[in-house]
Amino acid sequence: MNSSPSSVRLAGKTVRIVGTGLLGSSIGLGLRPLGVNVVLTDASPSSARLAEDLGAGQLASPSDVPDLIVVCVPPDVVADVIARELAEFEHAIVTDVASVKVAARDDLAARGVDVSRYVGAHPLAGRERGGAVSARGDLFIGRPWVVCREPQNSQTAVRLVEDLILDLGASVVEMTADEHDRAVALVSHAPQIVSTVMAAQLRSATDASVSVAGQGVRDVTRIAASSPDLWVQILGANHEAVVEVLRGVHTDLGAVIEALDSLDASGSRSTLAQAFSHGNEGVARLPGKHGQNRKFSIVTVLIDDRPGQLAHLLADIGELGINLEDLNLEHAPGAQLGTVEFSVVPEAVDRLVADLEQRGWRVAR
Amino acid sequence: MNSSPSSVRLAGKTVRIVGTGLLGSSIGLGLRPLGVNVVLTDASPSSARLAEDLGAGQLASPSDVPDLIVVCVPPDVVADVIARELAEFEHAIVTDVASVKVAARDDLAARGVDVSRYVGAHPLAGRERGGAVSARGDLFIGRPWVVCREPQNSQTAVRLVEDLILDLGASVVEMTADEHDRAVALVSHAPQIVSTVMAAQLRSATDASVSVAGQGVRDVTRIAASSPDLWVQILGANHEAVVEVLRGVHTDLGAVIEALDSLDASGSRSTLAQAFSHGNEGVARLPGKHGQNRKFSIVTVLIDDRPGQLAHLLADIGELGINLEDLNLEHAPGAQLGTVEFSVVPEAVDRLVADLEQRGWRVAR
Repeated sequence: MNSSPSSVRLAGKTVRIVGTGLLGSSIGLGLRPLGVNVVLTDASPSSARLAEDLGAGQLASPSDVPDLIVVCVPPDVVADVIARELAEFEHAIVTDVASVKVAARDDLAARGVDVSRYVGAHPLAGRERGGAVSARGDLFIGRPWVVCREPQNSQTAVRLVEDLILDLGASVVEMTADEHDRAVALVSHAPQIVSTVMAAQLRSATDASVSVAGQGVRDVTRIAASSPDLWVQILGANHEAVVEVLRGVHTDLGAVIEALDSLDASGSRSTLAQAFSHGNEGVARLPGKHGQNRKFSIVTVLIDDRPGQLAHLLADIGELGINLEDLNLEHAPGAQLGTVEFSVVPEAVDRLVADLEQRGWRVAR
Repeated sequence: MNSSPSSVRLAGKTVRIVGTGLLGSSIGLGLRPLGVNVVLTDASPSSARLAEDLGAGQLASPSDVPDLIVVCVPPDVVADVIARELAEFEHAIVTDVASVKVAARDDLAARGVDVSRYVGAHPLAGRERGGAVSARGDLFIGRPWVVCREPQNSQTAVRLVEDLILDLGASVVEMTADEHDRAVALVSHAPQIVSTVMAAQLRSATDASVSVAGQGVRDVTRIAASSPDLWVQILGANHEAVVEVLRGVHTDLGAVIEALDSLDASGSRSTLAQAFSHGNEGVARLPGKHGQNRKFSIVTVLIDDRPGQLAHLLADIGELGINLEDLNLEHAPGAQLGTVEFSVVPEAVDRLVADLEQRGWRVAR
């Protein structure tokens, strides 16, 4: 898929996956076609069998001698399972995919576990839907996968974990566990809570109010649909770093409320304007899908809402030999029209628009 | 476009558009093809000329006798302009598109303006990019357009404003000005501030932190890129209703922080779980793109990242006669693969998947 067999780093090795949810099953699905011997186990035997049926690997057996063990269990049991696997398989390297790294490391240290063979890691990949049924072998392609190397780690251990990551098409990002936990507190855990708390205000919304909801509130609250159980575990394991970010949100929000409450007071409007400028600056820090420096141009085409129209349009674009970067089809609710927004490299825009118009499409930049 | 000429309600009438930004120009672009006489004016003559060049209407002249005047100016001058237009055109009906309704109504009442000919309204439509250059005649198709009828309004006035809305393909939603302002505080203004304040925390993010940012934080902070100037005006005009919602956010966020700070205290984890449940319930209140009751199934296809692949796929789907509801093309950053996610009606899924697989596509549900 993303590697020819000869370049597979883990080819012929045995990888034991402990926990066959979305991530564990996706790792199995990604490794199997590469000639890796994948064995699966889960606290729930029926989950493990489902993952096997889906092609993620074979059920683990007592005779397995794993080279690498990937622990893919919920945050609250991850340290237990890592310690158990290290003890049971004395020559294997162990890694995990938990979304918080300091807690398990400290927990293992407190137990006096030798962690030379354990390398904590975290793939930044996921889906809104969980479980083996949502697993995909390509889930990690092009995604960052953080490796938290510790001084005790053997070189062999780190290299084997990096081999796993590269075989799955992801990129290795090195961070300390502390850096990692602060980073995810800022770019994942705090935004999750902010989204959740905003969404909670909609519980008492009237039908008329939600009828005027647009894309903004949908985007802000989309991740509020996440699982409470999982998030209580994640936040519990990273509460200090998360609280630090949330205090900033709480203070800044308080300042906005105060400014709105005393609009005529001197400085209130500049406080508000500054809050918005800071928001502009903050969102600009996020790299674009294609990296921070590459800009794409957007071309919008109006199409009728009937089968074949989009295919016809795409066929026309294909004939032009222009590669689309992103494409988004939107139906105006209730209307018989849709708009298709393309991202294309800026150099291609003029030619694309001219050609599409010549072919009778209604185009806007 | 969305109406045959014979059913155009405003055909032959003169509509004067005051303010030729995104909304004013889009209204002009939507009305022109229907045989409506659109005349344009703007505090900036060059803006008005640009809108004329783009096809939104003709520049206004002193001899115009407008039937309907649509005021599309920034919130802080909207009451002034409404009063001026009512005085200048004694027989015209006046409406506006401002995103806050109580302030202008009260301002006009305080001036003693007779508002029998003024009907406040607000189209829930917009784009991230502003200005006449971003205008689209189909901007309002299928979107809600709130009409705030007041007891003083003449029947004729209300009917003419509704004619405008229906001619542009939007749907009339009746609310009082107070209901409207509370609704937009909840589903637009408060989410904007929450997004902005969260984004502001990213200003000091390290490069490593933002390198692990995923779709969640991008969605939560997308609208934080909005214009500070415009938002200070909007919030200034609706601060009471906005503060009410923000106080709820602030209190709930404070409770989450407290629970995270004292995780071992009894009740802390249940406070967190409850916050997440409330978020789940709140986001479920938002109607889906296609209305709350219609569910779509998602089918994912893996494609190579080269010209023509998507067209080939869409052509195959077109031949099946299946209408796609939504389509999203994602490139795994840095990878030579993309995934295409389709929404289709559930009845079509089995057939689509089977047929695509038969044609050699790699499909996941």
